Amino acid sequence: MAPGNKQNRSSARTPSLGTPGITAPKGFRAAGGTCGIKVSGNPDLTLIVADGPCAAAGVFTRNKVAGAPVIVNRRHLKRGRARAIVCNSGNSNSATGQQGIDNAIEMARMVARPLGFDPHEVLMNSTGVIGRQLPMDKIGRGIATLVNRLDRGPKADADAARGIMTTDLVPKSAHRSLRIGGKIIQLAGICKGSGMIAPNMATMLAFLTTDAAISPATLQKALSAASAASFNRISVDQHTSPSDTVLILASGAAGNAEISAGGKEFDAFLEGLTDLSKDLAYQIVKDGEGATKVFRVRVLNARNEKDADAIGRAVVDSPLVKTAVHGGDPNWGRITTAAGYANAKVDPERMSLDVGEIRVFERGAPLPLKKREQNKLNRVMKQKEITFTLDMGLGKASVEWLGCDLSREYITINADYTT
Amino acid sequence: MAPGNKQNRSSARTPSLGTPGITAPKGFRAAGGTCGIKVSGNPDLTLIVADGPCAAAGVFTRNKVAGAPVIVNRRHLKRGRARAIVCNSGNSNSATGQQGIDNAIEMARMVARPLGFDPHEVLMNSTGVIGRQLPMDKIGRGIATLVNRLDRGPKADADAARGIMTTDLVPKSAHRSLRIGGKIIQLAGICKGSGMIAPNMATMLAFLTTDAAISPATLQKALSAASAASFNRISVDQHTSPSDTVLILASGAAGNAEISAGGKEFDAFLEGLTDLSKDLAYQIVKDGEGATKVFRVRVLNARNEKDADAIGRAVVDSPLVKTAVHGGDPNWGRITTAAGYANAKVDPERMSLDVGEIRVFERGAPLPLKKREQNKLNRVMKQKEITFTLDMGLGKASVEWLGCDLSREYITINADYTT
Repeated sequence: MAPGNKQNRSSARTPSLGTPGITAPKGFRAAGGTCGIKVSGNPDLTLIVADGPCAAAGVFTRNKVAGAPVIVNRRHLKRGRARAIVCNSGNSNSATGQQGIDNAIEMARMVARPLGFDPHEVLMNSTGVIGRQLPMDKIGRGIATLVNRLDRGPKADADAARGIMTTDLVPKSAHRSLRIGGKIIQLAGICKGSGMIAPNMATMLAFLTTDAAISPATLQKALSAASAASFNRISVDQHTSPSDTVLILASGAAGNAEISAGGKEFDAFLEGLTDLSKDLAYQIVKDGEGATKVFRVRVLNARNEKDADAIGRAVVDSPLVKTAVHGGDPNWGRITTAAGYANAKVDPERMSLDVGEIRVFERGAPLPLKKREQNKLNRVMKQKEITFTLDMGLGKASVEWLGCDLSREYITINADYTT
Repeated sequence: MAPGNKQNRSSARTPSLGTPGITAPKGFRAAGGTCGIKVSGNPDLTLIVADGPCAAAGVFTRNKVAGAPVIVNRRHLKRGRARAIVCNSGNSNSATGQQGIDNAIEMARMVARPLGFDPHEVLMNSTGVIGRQLPMDKIGRGIATLVNRLDRGPKADADAARGIMTTDLVPKSAHRSLRIGGKIIQLAGICKGSGMIAPNMATMLAFLTTDAAISPATLQKALSAASAASFNRISVDQHTSPSDTVLILASGAAGNAEISAGGKEFDAFLEGLTDLSKDLAYQIVKDGEGATKVFRVRVLNARNEKDADAIGRAVVDSPLVKTAVHGGDPNWGRITTAAGYANAKVDPERMSLDVGEIRVFERGAPLPLKKREQNKLNRVMKQKEITFTLDMGLGKASVEWLGCDLSREYITINADYTT
């Protein structure tokens, strides 16, 4: 698909996301729109603002060449409080040196000033081409406009989800309701996935809101655990962006007694947050650059969680596994051998592999398949979603990773780009 | 390119390789031919035999799901002596359990019996589709034929280089002459690279011969060091095969005084062996599946060699870097950020990046390029061979990695495969 098609799809005027969005939890307003960074004229700016002070937490890229907003956000989150998230798309703010840091701080001021906030209460994000300084004039005018358009409801939710998109084909949003301590708690999130209109970096951004009352430290604990089980177990193309960010604001407007770490309420909150995060993570993989299929790698009974993650990641990152999934080729030896080169304890004699529900490998050797099973295997591999289950037989750690196939379209998006 | 074209190219009747081949060092004969494993009728069997006992050494895959020949060869090499290398292509012998081990041992017997060798003096290799048992009847008849055709010279060299090919488009061979202790020492090698006619596994095999006199332990030391600097610093698609193998036989027929570890003679031998191995490694990358371009990643002044390797490997494995190279896109942020997610110490403030001879990034920020430099940068990125130089500014370790671009053709080879 040509970039032109993409842009048309992403700017289509579908006002609603179909589900409650980022302003569904009590105490939040949002807006999104076009400030002129993208040549296409597509939406490129999103603002999420809380009515009052919020507990805030973040999870950031482990890339050592981190983007300027990541560096500044880490500082702003030290007090565990924030009340606004701003994000521009079309231009990243990484590999930009001191001026990039200054621009990120200026972006915080642009939001804080008209709203009467302290700049430290604003969290910034920029996604797009790297190594170029942000067009601060356009961003400044855009923020001024969005501040006046802050609203709740389906239109604000949809605009916010669109303003952060890059090569995403569809806006991504999720919502959950839970009952905690007799009160209804809402959780919502928007995210963007892989790639740029001028393709560059598969940056992952997710912004979450909740009306739960929860302390900053407890919120951070929950966000770290939920992200580890969701956003950190997906891979489109293994290239960890310098800008990857997950942020959450908790308004406390639901009126529950403050959730503290360790209790039953915390478990329920964490479960809901993890479920929401997995939903968003799935949407990112499904809409990965050039992706036509999603596959799950369940790693069971590894020696420990670190090993399970190394094995899951080796399989979802293998170009040979990704192309086999793309072509619907039941070439399962690529999966067992990817497990074999993971930095983890692997004993082929104890390992088994199921493709869908068909066992193909057990104790170091292939299982002879009857004609009927072979046909079933071929059918499973043609599905849009495939599950591979590797039982390592070495311990009790189990994880699930999500990956997408590797298609010619991925190459088109990332190579055939006229500078 | 359709598989048909490939097969035509690989079976083309060009009798000579253009350079002296695997039988150039004194004391070796070789043969290659078709035994009927490949449906295409292309060559699929190679035999290299020494006139007398040889010192022998090997470097093997680190994949924990190792192929049967790897398991048996490790055993055979314990005594440091061997005198034959046999290799079939078209069918791997991995993920094949106990029967695979038995077949590898039987393959050794098939070579040893007519030649009057001990089976432990034979080293076996199988490359191709995995999870299927070898057709031992075909291999047996093929070996019997090749034993009678063993010869020296251009035709034997070319046949041997062809019998190990899978999706390789061209046979790969290299040769070096050195003077050590007043004697001419010859080194030669053949290798195969990435992929299969029925594509499956990017197995790398290299077989080397030399007429140097050298003890097994010293030979192993030289081979390990030479491989680390060559075959272990290339990546086509990061999927470490369960069958990767480098083997060397040293006949001692050159008449030099035995090379011992640590001396000046050892240094000269190691330098020659490393140079030969780098030549072969380069040929593998250049002929990588779907590759149209080769790029070098020079990592300078890393904290230590482990860090330098982690950085080099992260860059050559990044699909975003590989597609940028493919498209000739001067998107250098993909290189600095790949370095940033490597498992190594990286400080963007001390790092610089040159594309060809153009510095684009220094001390955490992009360098402003004049129009003329920008044009030059665009031209460099369009070249068939590109060098990226990352100076980490953290220590004294420097390495060089080789990678190839990622093209639609890679996807075609590996996905569109009818089982």
